[in-house]
Amino acid sequence: MTSELERLFEHLRFASISTDSRHVADVRANAEWLVGQFEGMGMATEIHETPGNPIVIARNKHVGGRRTVLIYGHYDVQPVDPLELWDSAPFEPEIRDGKIWGRGGADNKGQHFVHMLGAEKTIREDGELPVNVIFLIEGEEEIGSPNLVPFLEEHRDELACDIIAVSDTGMVALGVPTLGYGLRGITCLEVMVKGPSGDLHSGVYGGAVANPAMAAARMVASLHEDDGKIAVDGFYDDVIPLEDWERKMWAKVPGASDEDFLKTTGSLESFGEPGYSIAERLWGRPTVEVNGIGSGYQGEGSKTVLPAEAMFKLSCRLVPGQDPAMVQEKVEAHLRTHTPAGVTIEIEKGHSGKAYHNDPHSDYGKAAQRALTTSFGKEPVLIREGGSIPIIQDMKEILGSDSLMLGLALPDCQIHAPNENFAVENFECGILMSQALLKELAKA
Amino acid sequence: MTSELERLFEHLRFASISTDSRHVADVRANAEWLVGQFEGMGMATEIHETPGNPIVIARNKHVGGRRTVLIYGHYDVQPVDPLELWDSAPFEPEIRDGKIWGRGGADNKGQHFVHMLGAEKTIREDGELPVNVIFLIEGEEEIGSPNLVPFLEEHRDELACDIIAVSDTGMVALGVPTLGYGLRGITCLEVMVKGPSGDLHSGVYGGAVANPAMAAARMVASLHEDDGKIAVDGFYDDVIPLEDWERKMWAKVPGASDEDFLKTTGSLESFGEPGYSIAERLWGRPTVEVNGIGSGYQGEGSKTVLPAEAMFKLSCRLVPGQDPAMVQEKVEAHLRTHTPAGVTIEIEKGHSGKAYHNDPHSDYGKAAQRALTTSFGKEPVLIREGGSIPIIQDMKEILGSDSLMLGLALPDCQIHAPNENFAVENFECGILMSQALLKELAKA
Repeated sequence: MTSELERLFEHLRFASISTDSRHVADVRANAEWLVGQFEGMGMATEIHETPGNPIVIARNKHVGGRRTVLIYGHYDVQPVDPLELWDSAPFEPEIRDGKIWGRGGADNKGQHFVHMLGAEKTIREDGELPVNVIFLIEGEEEIGSPNLVPFLEEHRDELACDIIAVSDTGMVALGVPTLGYGLRGITCLEVMVKGPSGDLHSGVYGGAVANPAMAAARMVASLHEDDGKIAVDGFYDDVIPLEDWERKMWAKVPGASDEDFLKTTGSLESFGEPGYSIAERLWGRPTVEVNGIGSGYQGEGSKTVLPAEAMFKLSCRLVPGQDPAMVQEKVEAHLRTHTPAGVTIEIEKGHSGKAYHNDPHSDYGKAAQRALTTSFGKEPVLIREGGSIPIIQDMKEILGSDSLMLGLALPDCQIHAPNENFAVENFECGILMSQALLKELAKA
Repeated sequence: MTSELERLFEHLRFASISTDSRHVADVRANAEWLVGQFEGMGMATEIHETPGNPIVIARNKHVGGRRTVLIYGHYDVQPVDPLELWDSAPFEPEIRDGKIWGRGGADNKGQHFVHMLGAEKTIREDGELPVNVIFLIEGEEEIGSPNLVPFLEEHRDELACDIIAVSDTGMVALGVPTLGYGLRGITCLEVMVKGPSGDLHSGVYGGAVANPAMAAARMVASLHEDDGKIAVDGFYDDVIPLEDWERKMWAKVPGASDEDFLKTTGSLESFGEPGYSIAERLWGRPTVEVNGIGSGYQGEGSKTVLPAEAMFKLSCRLVPGQDPAMVQEKVEAHLRTHTPAGVTIEIEKGHSGKAYHNDPHSDYGKAAQRALTTSFGKEPVLIREGGSIPIIQDMKEILGSDSLMLGLALPDCQIHAPNENFAVENFECGILMSQALLKELAKA
């Protein structure tokens, strides 16, 4: 085993589970281990205390006139249960079948450690890095980064940078380098539907009194046309259309055909906005989804109740151009218009985040593409992602810098699940990629 | 206090809760007390053991050529919790505001005891009853009468009768004698909706994969037209239409106007089949109701899941003419036709029972009306009920006899709830009614 792999294994042995207070010492030990690594590279390293877990910052010697690159990562991990589903102990990493198995391998220790090793190797080879680098490795990503935004705001000037590099997303398939340039935003609503003043007997009162469960179903059903198009008035108004090159690119991304998505999800058929492939719907079009619905008796057998109330939870995924607050307003207006007679509704507006989008053909984007091509021996595919990483948009707003999403996690890497793994190939090519990236960005 | 009331109080003091095994001795003691009462009236009394609680049977001396009347009741009661909501101890009956307060007062001890006292009084006054009487008082009505149907089948010949009298339903208002001549039937279905092979991330996969919660909502919404009419093909085919006299009668039943029903239920507006009043929808028209629906995350806050499955429970209330099995088939066919693409459904068919209906203008019905008029000093209203009492239909099928439903429970009598009560007026007039009923039935 290479010394690089041995050092990754050290990193992976920390049970740095941020959501579980029993692991607070493991989390801190992991942060301190990172400090040791950065200091070993000769970097100026600081451990920033927060009300939660510390943030580790490390810099090489900054030189005026050079590009400044911020490299983001997180050293905290998800819980491991159910433990019995793991084939090897989550915090005792091992290599099998060309993969590194262990919690944090893909999310995110393996992914940010390639950038640390790449920087170290370049320093060893060239005596110094070609750019100013700021490593920012936080310890609370898995609990929603509650202390990072205040930290960014407080240290805005010291963190000023030209571009951000983040390896915390996916690579579409082994051997297919992937540059992400967009993430969907989100906005959430919860709806309470109220009918009679208490649960009623469905025999004594059924058929004559509005049933909130039925009303909730009608409201949910009203959100889409039969063909899958969102029926909320004006929902698509501000959506920036996909560009031709994106649709062409996505049509040939390995693992992203309609068939691939159906196989991955176990779905029988696709559903959604007509005229778009699944990849286009996921990466470039907005959604309204029901995340939960509930009313009445859901246990075993029957209870002939006419329930007094019902609830449902909606989340909308947003794309560039859409303002979360305006989307919430449109959905609320739709729900109020479509509230059946005999019930009232209360709407609670939940959290929101804007979509993130940059231009992969910018100078920095091209530099990243070149780095991926050099290190993986193949031109990268350019994709957006369907999910949301709010901190990317936060960094854009606070630091003013875009993020290059150089994902190294494969679709079967099992992040957040048992048997998390990280391909050895991506670890090794990742180190090369991080070296190439800094060189390319220096020239961008 | 009259000796009749004192004896009712004795009856009410037994904590004969059939669902709670800690009360098995109270239940038996109550049955034995009933035996003593019937024996005191000179009746031939038997206590029939069952795998559960005993059934008490009592007869006067039967004489050939006379009408035989079976009087049904039950001596078991519902649990009393929440105890703290009772204004007086549930098994220590007392009189306040013209009402007898205590568990079982209305459901059903007070109601069947008036028939026992009526028979006793007639025997005392006239030396004998004008008809052959069979009292059948069971101890498991509140747990679904699991042992009564086998008992009826086994004793079909000994229980043969011309007509059945049951006081276990409602009187529409104080001073308004009420004859029930129908009950709705029921049939239940549960639907499981399955989509992707597991829960999905609503960001990563939302907008392109059929969401079972959405599909369930669309199916539920499809069950009714916008105007409240049931949209299931052929659903109303076999429904026997309401007769003109019924609609005219129901329009003037006290406490049964649309306004009254909205006030009782706390609903803002009525909902249901156009062209019918609430009373008509409840008593004479069938329903499809959702008793429960559930999918995804229903807890606090948000979880952006695209759920793998959803469920909903339906019950249909049926009216004369409708066959439960055929209705199940029609609803199933509708659901299969309306299953959105991308999901599959599994349907579990639940319990069923036919509607019950008789002719209140039959000779027996007229006799009952005369008895109600005599005892309450006012002509009775004729109604059906929206709920189901399966044993009434079972008795019709096994014994071949119709039931006169002479309800004495007022709308505010709180059966199954804290502060159950029974109007003293209905107790006293009920005794007169039972005397008059036997006399009228003898002549019918």
